[in-house]
Amino acid sequence: MMRIALIGTGNLAIHLVHALETCNATQLVQWIGRKNTPPRQNLNTPYFTQYQQNIDADLCLIAIADDAIASTAEQLINSDVLVAHTAGAVSIDELKPLKRKGVFYPLQSFKETISVDWSTIPICIEATHTDDAELLEKLASQLSKNVHQISEHQRLQLHTAAVFANNFCNHLIGVSQNITSKAALPFSVLQPLIRETFERSFSNKAFALQTGPAKRNDTLTQQKHLSVLSEEDAELYRILSQSIFNTHNT
Amino acid sequence: MMRIALIGTGNLAIHLVHALETCNATQLVQWIGRKNTPPRQNLNTPYFTQYQQNIDADLCLIAIADDAIASTAEQLINSDVLVAHTAGAVSIDELKPLKRKGVFYPLQSFKETISVDWSTIPICIEATHTDDAELLEKLASQLSKNVHQISEHQRLQLHTAAVFANNFCNHLIGVSQNITSKAALPFSVLQPLIRETFERSFSNKAFALQTGPAKRNDTLTQQKHLSVLSEEDAELYRILSQSIFNTHNT
Repeated sequence: MMRIALIGTGNLAIHLVHALETCNATQLVQWIGRKNTPPRQNLNTPYFTQYQQNIDADLCLIAIADDAIASTAEQLINSDVLVAHTAGAVSIDELKPLKRKGVFYPLQSFKETISVDWSTIPICIEATHTDDAELLEKLASQLSKNVHQISEHQRLQLHTAAVFANNFCNHLIGVSQNITSKAALPFSVLQPLIRETFERSFSNKAFALQTGPAKRNDTLTQQKHLSVLSEEDAELYRILSQSIFNTHNT
Repeated sequence: MMRIALIGTGNLAIHLVHALETCNATQLVQWIGRKNTPPRQNLNTPYFTQYQQNIDADLCLIAIADDAIASTAEQLINSDVLVAHTAGAVSIDELKPLKRKGVFYPLQSFKETISVDWSTIPICIEATHTDDAELLEKLASQLSKNVHQISEHQRLQLHTAAVFANNFCNHLIGVSQNITSKAALPFSVLQPLIRETFERSFSNKAFALQTGPAKRNDTLTQQKHLSVLSEEDAELYRILSQSIFNTHNT
């Protein structure tokens, strides 16, 4: 049984608590957060609002804001336990004062209210020592079938790629929802097109699938589209159209 | 049996030929294109390179470039047949000289080599006369379970929304693929995140699902991301991040 401590009370932390409490091979021995009460009901794990010195666990995961990682590591300086942060764009060196440090980065967008299937979530790990990498890999493999040991630079690149594929696409879908809503049309009309868009990208180069007025420089259609957009959405439209045009015509 | 003529040889036309030849309730009586030979093998339909006067069909679909619709309508001026164009952002008035005009707009991104499931494709129709709208609705219902009578302005809004959801998201997925490729990582690592992103948007407001550094104005992470991007991708990153920030913080 792998004994784990967890620091943090955000979206990822809440999902990790659930995953670690549910997994047969792991025991969540303590959960530490700044909130006075744990942000989850029916908790089987002791909850603390203060760091414990000499955490009695095999591994301590810290799932907190990026800019709090270094100061939290300072608090754990006397601990012998392996400490791993869970951030995509933070160097393992932010844990510098610690003897044993690692990264345990699950590549998913976590919202408290939306359940996730951990078995499919890619977990990217990194550690300074081989033994610690093995420990992280063992934990990751208990939760997911999709585990990758990658370097810090690869992780940053992956995190950046995820911003384009998740954050930015999600925002554009939101713009799209606003337009259909204004048109008094159900967003479900776009569902088959959207599903096709991303499913096709899993087995093709997306650039080779590109269609639309921007690719073929159809300025007449673009003018019509701009006429139904707010100034801010029109600005997005112009920049994205230009980027598509440049990709296919230079 | 509904007798249909089709003008055009592009991606949509090729998919329409297949759908209309396969459907039990329709007969494709002629296919007209500018190419000397039909761009499809094993064709059961007579292929012509010249317009026929008095087309002997219940309906003539024109699936050609937007800017060729008006001049093609001029060619068909003596015909009594209902003529429908298939474009999202073209007014029915482009068919002005014709007695019976309509729109038959299938909302999907068509690529010649990628098969589609017509039964799920939304087909948006419009006609000047009620009888003609019924005829178009009858045809659309033979191909798809997802048929909508919408106005010209709704169709333009829908087409614009589709550009955001399909053209722009596809482009950003392409950028994302380039980043993972540069990182020597398989793009499949992003697959669960991408599927989650889009599937969640079908039952939620995408803006309510937004996460990431742009929403929380995490400029440190944004600087790290910018450091791995080309100048052109960095420009996209900045504009999209600004739009996300504005959406959630103004």
